[in-house]
Amino acid sequence: MKSLTEYLDMEVPSRRGFVNLTPRVEEAVERSGISEGLCLVNPMHITASVFINDDEPGLHSDYEGWLEGIAPHEPTGRYKHNDTGEDNADAHLKRQVMGREVVVAITGGRLDLGTWERIFYGEFDGMRTKRVLVKIIGE
Amino acid sequence: MKSLTEYLDMEVPSRRGFVNLTPRVEEAVERSGISEGLCLVNPMHITASVFINDDEPGLHSDYEGWLEGIAPHEPTGRYKHNDTGEDNADAHLKRQVMGREVVVAITGGRLDLGTWERIFYGEFDGMRTKRVLVKIIGE
Amino acid sequence: MKSLTEYLDMEVPSRRGFVNLTPRVEEAVERSGISEGLCLVNPMHITASVFINDDEPGLHSDYEGWLEGIAPHEPTGRYKHNDTGEDNADAHLKRQVMGREVVVAITGGRLDLGTWERIFYGEFDGMRTKRVLVKIIGE
Repeated sequence: MKSLTEYLDMEVPSRRGFVNLTPRVEEAVERSGISEGLCLVNPMHITASVFINDDEPGLHSDYEGWLEGIAPHEPTGRYKHNDTGEDNADAHLKRQVMGREVVVAITGGRLDLGTWERIFYGEFDGMRTKRVLVKIIGE
Repeated sequence: MKSLTEYLDMEVPSRRGFVNLTPRVEEAVERSGISEGLCLVNPMHITASVFINDDEPGLHSDYEGWLEGIAPHEPTGRYKHNDTGEDNADAHLKRQVMGREVVVAITGGRLDLGTWERIFYGEFDGMRTKRVLVKIIGE
Repeated sequence: MKSLTEYLDMEVPSRRGFVNLTPRVEEAVERSGISEGLCLVNPMHITASVFINDDEPGLHSDYEGWLEGIAPHEPTGRYKHNDTGEDNADAHLKRQVMGREVVVAITGGRLDLGTWERIFYGEFDGMRTKRVLVKIIGE
Protein backbone atom coordinates (compact mmCIF):
# COMPACT_ATOMS: atom_id res chain seq x y z
CA MET A 1 0.00 0.00 0.00
CA LYS A 2 1.17 3.52 -0.81
CA SER A 3 -0.03 6.76 0.73
CA LEU A 4 0.36 10.51 0.29
CA THR A 5 -0.49 13.33 2.71
CA GLU A 6 -0.64 16.96 1.63
CA TYR A 7 -1.86 20.15 3.28
CA LEU A 8 -3.18 22.95 1.07
CA ASP A 9 -3.25 26.52 2.35
CA MET A 10 -6.55 28.32 1.81
CA GLU A 11 -6.97 32.09 2.04
CA VAL A 12 -10.44 33.39 1.23
CA PRO A 13 -10.44 37.22 1.44
CA SER A 14 -14.13 37.45 2.39
CA ARG A 15 -16.34 35.87 5.04
CA ARG A 16 -17.79 33.38 2.58
CA GLY A 17 -16.62 32.00 -0.75
CA PHE A 18 -16.10 28.90 -2.89
CA VAL A 19 -12.76 27.78 -4.36
CA ASN A 20 -12.30 25.03 -6.97
CA LEU A 21 -9.72 22.61 -5.55
CA THR A 22 -9.87 20.05 -8.36
CA PRO A 23 -6.60 20.94 -10.12
CA ARG A 24 -4.62 20.87 -6.85
CA VAL A 25 -6.10 17.52 -5.85
CA GLU A 26 -5.37 16.10 -9.32
CA GLU A 27 -1.74 17.16 -8.96
CA ALA A 28 -1.54 15.43 -5.58
CA VAL A 29 -2.92 12.23 -7.15
CA GLU A 30 -0.22 12.40 -9.85
CA ARG A 31 2.51 12.95 -7.25
CA SER A 32 1.24 9.96 -5.24
CA GLY A 33 1.90 7.50 -8.06
CA ILE A 34 -1.24 5.64 -6.92
CA SER A 35 -3.36 4.16 -9.69
CA GLU A 36 -6.16 2.46 -7.71
CA GLY A 37 -7.29 3.86 -4.38
CA LEU A 38 -9.26 6.42 -2.41
CA CYS A 39 -8.64 10.14 -1.98
CA LEU A 40 -9.98 11.97 1.09
CA VAL A 41 -10.21 15.78 0.98
CA ASN A 42 -11.34 17.72 4.07
CA PRO A 43 -10.87 21.11 5.71
CA MET A 44 -9.01 20.94 9.01
CA HIS A 45 -11.47 23.55 10.30
CA ILE A 46 -15.04 23.37 11.54
CA THR A 47 -16.45 26.43 9.79
CA ALA A 48 -15.64 25.26 6.25
CA SER A 49 -16.68 22.44 3.91
CA VAL A 50 -15.21 20.41 1.11
CA PHE A 51 -17.95 19.33 -1.28
CA ILE A 52 -18.48 18.30 -4.89
CA ASN A 53 -20.78 20.21 -7.19
CA ASP A 54 -20.88 22.40 -10.31
CA ASP A 55 -18.33 25.07 -11.26
CA GLU A 56 -21.05 27.60 -12.10
CA PRO A 57 -21.13 31.08 -10.50
CA GLY A 58 -24.94 31.33 -10.58
CA LEU A 59 -25.20 28.14 -8.54
CA HIS A 60 -22.65 29.39 -6.03
CA SER A 61 -24.71 32.55 -5.63
CA ASP A 62 -27.77 30.34 -5.08
CA TYR A 63 -25.90 28.35 -2.40
CA GLU A 64 -24.88 31.58 -0.68
CA GLY A 65 -28.45 32.92 -0.50
CA TRP A 66 -29.97 29.57 0.38
CA LEU A 67 -27.54 28.86 3.23
CA GLU A 68 -28.03 32.37 4.57
CA GLY A 69 -31.77 31.62 4.66
CA ILE A 70 -31.28 28.30 6.48
CA ALA A 71 -28.66 29.58 8.96
CA PRO A 72 -28.48 33.41 8.96
CA HIS A 73 -25.33 35.14 10.13
CA GLU A 74 -27.33 37.90 11.83
CA PRO A 75 -28.49 38.69 14.38
CA THR A 76 -25.36 37.04 15.81
CA GLY A 77 -26.92 37.17 19.29
CA ARG A 78 -29.46 34.51 18.34
CA TYR A 79 -26.77 31.81 18.75
CA LYS A 80 -25.49 30.65 22.15
CA HIS A 81 -22.14 29.76 20.59
CA ASN A 82 -21.59 33.47 19.97
CA ASP A 83 -21.78 34.13 23.74
CA THR A 84 -18.22 32.74 23.79
CA GLY A 85 -17.08 35.89 21.95
CA GLU A 86 -17.30 34.34 18.47
CA ASP A 87 -19.61 35.60 15.72
CA ASN A 88 -19.38 32.50 13.54
CA ALA A 89 -22.06 30.14 14.88
CA ASP A 90 -23.86 30.33 11.52
CA ALA A 91 -20.70 29.02 9.83
CA HIS A 92 -20.74 25.87 12.01
CA LEU A 93 -24.34 25.28 10.88
CA LYS A 94 -23.78 26.03 7.18
CA ARG A 95 -20.85 23.64 7.12
CA GLN A 96 -23.09 20.77 8.31
CA VAL A 97 -25.52 21.36 5.42
CA MET A 98 -22.71 21.34 2.85
CA GLY A 99 -20.77 18.52 4.54
CA ARG A 100 -17.21 18.21 5.86
CA GLU A 101 -15.36 15.99 3.42
CA VAL A 102 -15.39 14.12 0.14
CA VAL A 103 -13.95 10.72 -0.66
CA VAL A 104 -13.16 10.28 -4.35
CA ALA A 105 -12.15 7.09 -6.15
CA ILE A 106 -8.82 6.94 -8.00
CA THR A 107 -8.98 4.75 -11.10
CA GLY A 108 -6.18 4.34 -13.62
CA GLY A 109 -4.14 7.02 -11.83
CA ARG A 110 -6.84 9.71 -12.11
CA LEU A 111 -9.64 11.10 -9.94
CA ASP A 112 -12.68 9.08 -11.07
CA LEU A 113 -15.09 12.04 -11.33
CA GLY A 114 -18.22 12.44 -13.45
CA THR A 115 -18.29 15.02 -16.26
CA TRP A 116 -19.46 17.91 -14.08
CA GLU A 117 -18.09 16.90 -10.70
CA ARG A 118 -15.64 19.43 -9.27
CA ILE A 119 -14.17 19.50 -5.76
CA PHE A 120 -14.84 22.76 -3.91
CA TYR A 121 -13.68 24.36 -0.73
CA GLY A 122 -16.57 26.22 0.90
CA GLU A 123 -15.51 28.94 3.31
CA PHE A 124 -18.09 30.26 5.80
CA ASP A 125 -15.78 32.20 8.17
CA GLY A 126 -12.88 33.44 6.09
CA MET A 127 -10.34 36.24 6.06
CA ARG A 128 -7.70 34.05 7.70
CA THR A 129 -5.45 31.19 6.60
CA LYS A 130 -6.90 27.71 6.80
CA ARG A 131 -5.73 24.28 5.68
CA VAL A 132 -7.21 21.48 3.61
CA LEU A 133 -5.94 17.92 4.02
CA VAL A 134 -5.53 15.59 1.05
CA LYS A 135 -4.92 11.96 2.01
CA ILE A 136 -4.53 9.29 -0.65
CA ILE A 137 -4.14 5.57 -0.07
CA GLY A 138 -3.95 2.78 -2.61
CA GLU A 139 -1.53 1.03 -4.90
CA MET B 1 -4.18 -4.54 -1.72
CA LYS B 2 -7.04 -5.45 -4.02
CA SER B 3 -9.55 -3.11 -5.63
CA LEU B 4 -12.72 -3.23 -7.70
CA THR B 5 -14.39 -0.50 -9.76
CA GLU B 6 -17.94 -0.80 -11.07
CA TYR B 7 -20.34 1.63 -12.69
CA LEU B 8 -24.08 1.09 -12.19
CA ASP B 9 -26.56 2.57 -14.66
CA MET B 10 -29.46 4.42 -13.05
CA GLU B 11 -32.65 5.32 -14.86
CA VAL B 12 -35.32 7.01 -12.74
CA PRO B 13 -38.44 7.65 -14.89
CA SER B 14 -39.55 10.70 -12.88
CA ARG B 15 -37.90 13.93 -11.76
CA ARG B 16 -37.34 12.63 -8.24
CA GLY B 17 -37.15 9.16 -6.73
CA PHE B 18 -35.25 6.79 -4.45
CA VAL B 19 -33.75 3.43 -5.48
CA ASN B 20 -32.38 0.79 -3.09
CA LEU B 21 -28.85 -0.01 -4.31
CA THR B 22 -27.92 -2.40 -1.49
CA PRO B 23 -28.25 -5.70 -3.42
CA ARG B 24 -26.14 -4.41 -6.31
CA VAL B 25 -23.43 -3.11 -3.98
CA GLU B 26 -23.43 -6.43 -2.08
CA GLU B 27 -22.89 -8.27 -5.36
CA ALA B 28 -19.95 -5.99 -6.19
CA VAL B 29 -18.43 -6.75 -2.78
CA GLU B 30 -18.74 -10.49 -3.48
CA ARG B 31 -17.14 -10.11 -6.91
CA SER B 32 -14.27 -8.15 -5.39
CA GLY B 33 -13.14 -11.04 -3.19
CA ILE B 34 -12.23 -8.43 -0.56
CA SER B 35 -12.89 -9.45 3.05
CA GLU B 36 -11.62 -6.38 4.96
CA GLY B 37 -11.79 -2.92 3.43
CA LEU B 38 -13.82 0.13 2.50
CA CYS B 39 -16.54 0.54 -0.11
CA LEU B 40 -17.27 3.98 -1.62
CA VAL B 41 -20.58 4.51 -3.43
CA ASN B 42 -21.32 7.83 -5.15
CA PRO B 43 -23.32 9.22 -8.05
CA MET B 44 -21.14 10.62 -10.85
CA HIS B 45 -23.67 13.46 -11.13
CA ILE B 46 -24.25 16.60 -9.12
CA THR B 47 -28.05 16.50 -8.93
CA ALA B 48 -28.25 13.12 -7.18
CA SER B 49 -27.22 11.61 -3.84
CA VAL B 50 -26.16 8.29 -2.46
CA PHE B 51 -27.22 8.00 1.18
CA ILE B 52 -28.05 5.40 3.82
CA ASN B 53 -31.42 5.27 5.50
CA ASP B 54 -34.60 3.21 5.89
CA ASP B 55 -36.33 1.22 3.13
CA GLU B 56 -39.76 2.57 4.10
CA PRO B 57 -42.03 4.29 1.53
CA GLY B 58 -43.61 6.62 4.11
CA LEU B 59 -40.17 7.97 5.02
CA HIS B 60 -39.29 8.47 1.36
CA SER B 61 -42.49 10.47 0.94
CA ASP B 62 -41.50 12.52 4.00
CA TYR B 63 -38.06 13.19 2.47
CA GLU B 64 -39.69 14.28 -0.78
CA GLY B 65 -41.99 16.81 0.92
CA TRP B 66 -39.35 18.02 3.35
CA LEU B 67 -36.70 18.62 0.68
CA GLU B 68 -39.27 20.41 -1.48
CA GLY B 69 -39.92 22.71 1.48
CA ILE B 70 -36.19 23.40 2.04
CA ALA B 71 -35.32 23.85 -1.66
CA PRO B 72 -38.47 24.22 -3.81
CA HIS B 73 -38.33 23.37 -7.50
CA GLU B 74 -40.63 26.27 -8.38
CA PRO B 75 -40.64 29.06 -9.20
CA THR B 76 -37.56 28.02 -11.21
CA GLY B 77 -36.77 31.70 -11.85
CA ARG B 78 -35.82 32.22 -8.20
CA TYR B 79 -32.45 30.52 -8.84
CA LYS B 80 -29.61 32.22 -10.75
CA HIS B 81 -28.34 28.82 -11.87
CA ASN B 82 -31.51 28.45 -13.92
CA ASP B 83 -30.56 31.57 -15.94
CA THR B 84 -28.11 29.22 -17.72
CA GLY B 85 -31.12 27.49 -19.31
CA GLU B 86 -31.35 24.74 -16.68
CA ASP B 87 -34.37 24.20 -14.42
CA ASN B 88 -32.60 21.99 -11.88
CA ALA B 89 -31.00 24.41 -9.40
CA ASP B 90 -33.19 22.95 -6.64
CA ALA B 91 -31.69 19.51 -7.35
CA HIS B 92 -28.16 20.83 -6.68
CA LEU B 93 -29.41 22.12 -3.30
CA LYS B 94 -31.38 19.00 -2.33
CA ARG B 95 -28.36 16.85 -3.09
CA GLN B 96 -26.26 18.79 -0.56
CA VAL B 97 -28.81 18.14 2.20
CA MET B 98 -28.87 14.40 1.46
CA GLY B 99 -25.12 14.16 0.80
CA ARG B 100 -23.05 12.92 -2.14
CA GLU B 101 -21.55 9.62 -1.10
CA VAL B 102 -21.37 6.87 1.47
CA VAL B 103 -18.35 4.93 2.66
CA VAL B 104 -19.24 1.53 4.10
CA ALA B 105 -16.97 -0.90 5.95
CA ILE B 106 -16.44 -4.40 4.58
CA THR B 107 -15.94 -6.97 7.34
CA GLY B 108 -15.66 -10.72 6.78
CA GLY B 109 -16.44 -10.27 3.09
CA ARG B 110 -19.76 -8.48 3.67
CA LEU B 111 -21.02 -4.89 3.86
CA ASP B 112 -20.88 -4.13 7.60
CA LEU B 113 -24.30 -2.46 7.83
CA GLY B 114 -26.63 -2.11 10.82
CA THR B 115 -29.98 -3.93 10.85
CA TRP B 116 -31.91 -1.15 9.10
CA GLU B 117 -29.15 0.50 7.04
CA ARG B 118 -29.82 0.39 3.30
CA ILE B 119 -27.90 2.21 0.57
CA PHE B 120 -30.10 4.45 -1.58
CA TYR B 121 -29.70 6.41 -4.76
CA GLY B 122 -31.61 9.68 -4.50
CA GLU B 123 -32.51 11.23 -7.84
CA PHE B 124 -33.48 14.92 -7.92
CA ASP B 125 -33.31 15.55 -11.68
CA GLY B 126 -34.22 12.31 -13.38
CA MET B 127 -35.67 11.04 -16.65
CA ARG B 128 -32.20 10.39 -18.09
CA THR B 129 -29.47 7.80 -17.63
CA LYS B 130 -26.99 8.42 -14.87
CA ARG B 131 -24.18 6.42 -13.32
CA VAL B 132 -23.21 5.38 -9.81
CA LEU B 133 -19.60 4.47 -9.00
CA VAL B 134 -18.74 1.62 -6.63
CA LYS B 135 -15.09 1.54 -5.58
CA ILE B 136 -13.83 -1.08 -3.17
CA ILE B 137 -10.33 -1.34 -1.75
CA GLY B 138 -8.98 -3.76 0.82
CA GLU B 139 -7.62 -7.24 1.16
CA MET C 1 -2.55 -3.85 4.43
CA LYS C 2 -3.76 -3.96 8.04
CA SER C 3 -7.29 -3.35 9.31
CA LEU C 4 -9.16 -3.01 12.58
CA THR C 5 -12.89 -3.22 13.26
CA GLU C 6 -14.45 -2.08 16.53
CA TYR C 7 -18.02 -1.55 17.70
CA LEU C 8 -18.67 1.08 20.36
CA ASP C 9 -21.82 0.90 22.49
CA MET C 10 -23.72 4.17 22.78
CA GLU C 11 -26.36 4.87 25.39
CA VAL C 12 -27.83 8.37 25.34
CA PRO C 13 -30.36 8.73 28.19
CA SER C 14 -32.47 11.36 26.41
CA ARG C 15 -34.13 11.60 22.99
CA ARG C 16 -31.36 13.81 21.62
CA GLY C 17 -27.76 14.44 22.63
CA PHE C 18 -24.16 14.73 21.47
CA VAL C 19 -21.26 12.58 22.69
CA ASN C 20 -17.55 13.26 22.00
CA LEU C 21 -16.15 10.03 20.53
CA THR C 22 -12.64 11.34 19.81
CA PRO C 23 -10.80 9.64 22.72
CA ARG C 24 -12.35 6.25 21.94
CA VAL C 25 -11.49 6.54 18.24
CA GLU C 26 -7.92 7.59 19.08
CA GLU C 27 -7.57 4.50 21.26
CA ALA C 28 -8.77 2.32 18.39
CA VAL C 29 -6.18 3.91 16.09
CA GLU C 30 -3.46 3.10 18.64
CA ARG C 31 -4.64 -0.50 18.97
CA SER C 32 -4.63 -0.87 15.16
CA GLY C 33 -0.89 -0.21 14.88
CA ILE C 34 -1.66 1.57 11.60
CA SER C 35 0.46 4.63 10.88
CA GLU C 36 -0.86 5.71 7.45
CA GLY C 37 -4.46 5.07 6.47
CA LEU C 38 -8.12 5.99 6.69
CA CYS C 39 -10.51 5.70 9.63
CA LEU C 40 -14.27 5.42 9.03
CA VAL C 41 -16.64 6.13 11.93
CA ASN C 42 -20.40 5.68 11.49
CA PRO C 43 -23.50 4.83 13.52
CA MET C 44 -25.05 1.49 12.60
CA HIS C 45 -28.44 3.19 12.99
CA ILE C 46 -30.44 5.50 10.77
CA THR C 47 -31.62 8.01 13.38
CA ALA C 48 -28.13 9.05 14.49
CA SER C 49 -25.11 10.81 12.98
CA VAL C 50 -21.37 10.82 13.35
CA PHE C 51 -19.99 14.26 12.51
CA ILE C 52 -17.02 16.49 13.22
CA ASN C 53 -17.40 19.88 14.85
CA ASP C 54 -16.63 21.89 17.98
CA ASP C 55 -16.72 20.58 21.57
CA GLU C 56 -18.66 23.63 22.80
CA PRO C 57 -21.97 23.27 24.70
CA GLY C 58 -23.41 26.54 23.32
CA LEU C 59 -22.95 25.28 19.77
CA HIS C 60 -24.58 21.95 20.62
CA SER C 61 -27.55 23.86 22.01
CA ASP C 62 -27.64 25.88 18.76
CA TYR C 63 -27.62 22.62 16.73
CA GLU C 64 -30.47 21.27 18.84
CA GLY C 65 -32.70 24.32 18.30
CA TRP C 66 -31.76 24.72 14.64
CA LEU C 67 -32.44 21.07 13.75
CA GLU C 68 -35.75 21.20 15.63
CA GLY C 69 -36.67 24.19 13.44
CA ILE C 70 -35.70 22.40 10.21
CA ALA C 71 -37.32 19.05 11.11
CA PRO C 72 -39.62 19.39 14.15
CA HIS C 73 -40.39 16.33 16.26
CA GLU C 74 -44.00 17.44 16.74
CA PRO C 75 -46.69 17.16 15.67
CA THR C 76 -45.57 13.58 15.01
CA GLY C 77 -48.64 13.04 12.81
CA ARG C 78 -47.22 15.32 10.13
CA TYR C 79 -44.87 12.52 8.97
CA LYS C 80 -46.08 9.50 6.98
CA HIS C 81 -43.25 7.43 8.45
CA ASN C 82 -44.93 7.76 11.84
CA ASP C 83 -48.05 5.99 10.47
CA THR C 84 -45.97 2.79 10.85
CA GLY C 85 -46.23 3.21 14.65
CA GLU C 86 -42.91 5.07 15.01
CA ASP C 87 -42.60 8.61 16.33
CA ASN C 88 -39.05 9.21 15.06
CA ALA C 89 -39.47 10.45 11.47
CA ASP C 90 -37.86 13.76 12.47
CA ALA C 91 -34.75 11.86 13.59
CA HIS C 92 -34.34 10.35 10.10
CA LEU C 93 -34.44 13.90 8.67
CA LYS C 94 -32.13 15.49 11.24
CA ARG C 95 -29.57 12.76 10.65
CA GLN C 96 -29.41 13.64 6.93
CA VAL C 97 -28.61 17.29 7.74
CA MET C 98 -25.81 16.30 10.13
CA GLY C 99 -24.56 13.43 7.95
CA ARG C 100 -24.03 9.71 8.56
CA GLU C 101 -20.30 9.19 8.78
CA VAL C 102 -16.85 10.71 8.89
CA VAL C 103 -13.67 9.51 7.24
CA VAL C 104 -10.53 10.76 8.99
CA ALA C 105 -6.94 10.48 7.80
CA ILE C 106 -4.38 8.66 9.94
CA THR C 107 -0.90 10.16 9.66
CA GLY C 108 2.10 9.09 11.72
CA GLY C 109 -0.09 6.77 13.79
CA ARG C 110 -2.52 9.53 14.88
CA LEU C 111 -5.90 10.89 13.76
CA ASP C 112 -4.92 13.78 11.46
CA LEU C 113 -7.42 16.30 12.87
CA GLY C 114 -7.29 20.10 12.88
CA THR C 115 -6.95 21.97 16.19
CA TRP C 116 -10.69 22.16 16.90
CA GLU C 117 -11.95 19.07 15.07
CA ARG C 118 -13.66 16.59 17.37
CA ILE C 119 -15.63 13.48 16.36
CA PHE C 120 -19.19 13.48 17.73
CA TYR C 121 -22.00 11.00 17.93
CA GLY C 122 -25.31 12.79 17.38
CA GLU C 123 -28.32 10.97 18.80
CA PHE C 124 -31.80 11.95 17.56
CA ASP C 125 -33.83 9.01 18.90
CA GLY C 126 -32.13 7.84 22.04
CA MET C 127 -32.96 6.08 25.29
CA ARG C 128 -31.81 2.72 23.91
CA THR C 129 -28.46 1.06 23.16
CA LYS C 130 -26.96 1.75 19.77
CA ARG C 131 -23.63 0.94 18.14
CA VAL C 132 -20.96 2.92 16.34
CA LEU C 133 -18.59 1.21 13.90
CA VAL C 134 -14.91 2.16 13.70
CA LYS C 135 -13.11 0.69 10.68
CA ILE C 136 -9.47 1.44 10.05
CA ILE C 137 -7.42 0.36 7.06
CA GLY C 138 -3.85 1.21 6.19
CA GLU C 139 -0.30 0.18 6.91
